[in-house]
Amino acid sequence: LVSVLSSAIIVYRLPWTWKCSKLLMKFIHAGLNTIAMILAIVSMVAVFDFHNARNIPNMYSLHSWIGLAAVIFYSLQLVLGFAVFLLPFAPVPLRAALMPIHVYSGLTIFATVIATALMGITEKLIFSLQNPAYSASPPEATFVNCLGLLLVIFGALVLWMASRPHWKRPPEVNAEVLRPLGEPPEGREAESTMTDGSNTDKPPLGISSEAARKQNLKLDEAGQRSTM
Amino acid sequence: LVSVLSSAIIVYRLPWTWKCSKLLMKFIHAGLNTIAMILAIVSMVAVFDFHNARNIPNMYSLHSWIGLAAVIFYSLQLVLGFAVFLLPFAPVPLRAALMPIHVYSGLTIFATVIATALMGITEKLIFSLQNPAYSASPPEATFVNCLGLLLVIFGALVLWMASRPHWKRPPEVNAEVLRPLGEPPEGREAESTMTDGSNTDKPPLGISSEAARKQNLKLDEAGQRSTM
Repeated sequence: LVSVLSSAIIVYRLPWTWKCSKLLMKFIHAGLNTIAMILAIVSMVAVFDFHNARNIPNMYSLHSWIGLAAVIFYSLQLVLGFAVFLLPFAPVPLRAALMPIHVYSGLTIFATVIATALMGITEKLIFSLQNPAYSASPPEATFVNCLGLLLVIFGALVLWMASRPHWKRPPEVNAEVLRPLGEPPEGREAESTMTDGSNTDKPPLGISSEAARKQNLKLDEAGQRSTM
Repeated sequence: LVSVLSSAIIVYRLPWTWKCSKLLMKFIHAGLNTIAMILAIVSMVAVFDFHNARNIPNMYSLHSWIGLAAVIFYSLQLVLGFAVFLLPFAPVPLRAALMPIHVYSGLTIFATVIATALMGITEKLIFSLQNPAYSASPPEATFVNCLGLLLVIFGALVLWMASRPHWKRPPEVNAEVLRPLGEPPEGREAESTMTDGSNTDKPPLGISSEAARKQNLKLDEAGQRSTM
């Protein structure tokens, strides 16, 4: 589930996909998220069946509360994303206004799913390890703790990839606008930055906007010159 | 701890602080983080003392592993942040290169701290509630589950505030550059956007960069006119 979710998140961040059409990428993103949703529903049904078969109460733990909240918000996210970004009816300003919310809630749901998994692992270790107990640190406990730690590292890497401005899919509109003015298409430029392995990020806040302003000034100057 | 941490994160995002000097804001940010670090150390000492007094093993659970990792990374973050951003020795390009990493790791540590707290709550509820057990959903269990859910909502709100481009402290350099050219200072402009209560976010990706480009074009044109 987490791996499908993270594939759906980083699918826009892979430089070799920047040549694919935006619509294809959207279909892959929507498809992966649909698979993740199906997996989430299957696993929830399995949990309820398991609880009912063993006479364990349902929905009593914080793990289950936060997990259910995550699944509810995830299904809302999926339906809204499908209606606004995949179907061709939503006007561009609405898409533009909802996109930051879509990105934020997607990443927040992803982080919440990882937190839910960590709580689930904690519960499972406490309940399942009885002789020796979890507190005696048997090899299983150490092994599963390592898996939990790897899950956190994996989640942090996905959020890193998703939040780097350099790894953004280059905007097609800009590339179209700039190409006739003698500038290299932005897509190819950004791609070469990736393949060069230069991993430096754009500076944030004042410095980044200052740099962006200067860069735009240069582009605009070039544009003005070529129209003159 | 979480509230001090989140205050330290959102201190740059409060419009009424945009009039304060950047150095004062840095001192408040560093001070709050130092208080949070002291609280983290005090609580860790308390946990080890509690475990030793009751003959409970230390550092066996996933909660403790991830919590310790978070504290170690947090102290690294604090030392590096102090050395690079507060002391006057680091050159501007180094600060610019490290700032996105500082922001990312700060927010990731914050999210990890919340996940650790959720695991700790889960453990505590399982171990402390015995008669009636956690699975019988006594009022304490429901109450603490609600607290855990509020913690997730609180963390999500802080991450929302920290990731909105509109709520960024306006860059002082830009304001200084633009003021002589007859433009209103960017700080005041951004502030009025905040007090107007207009909460719409800048559209992301192509649309946002396109809009930013147009806005910069306008500013640059105005600048060229006033110098002409």
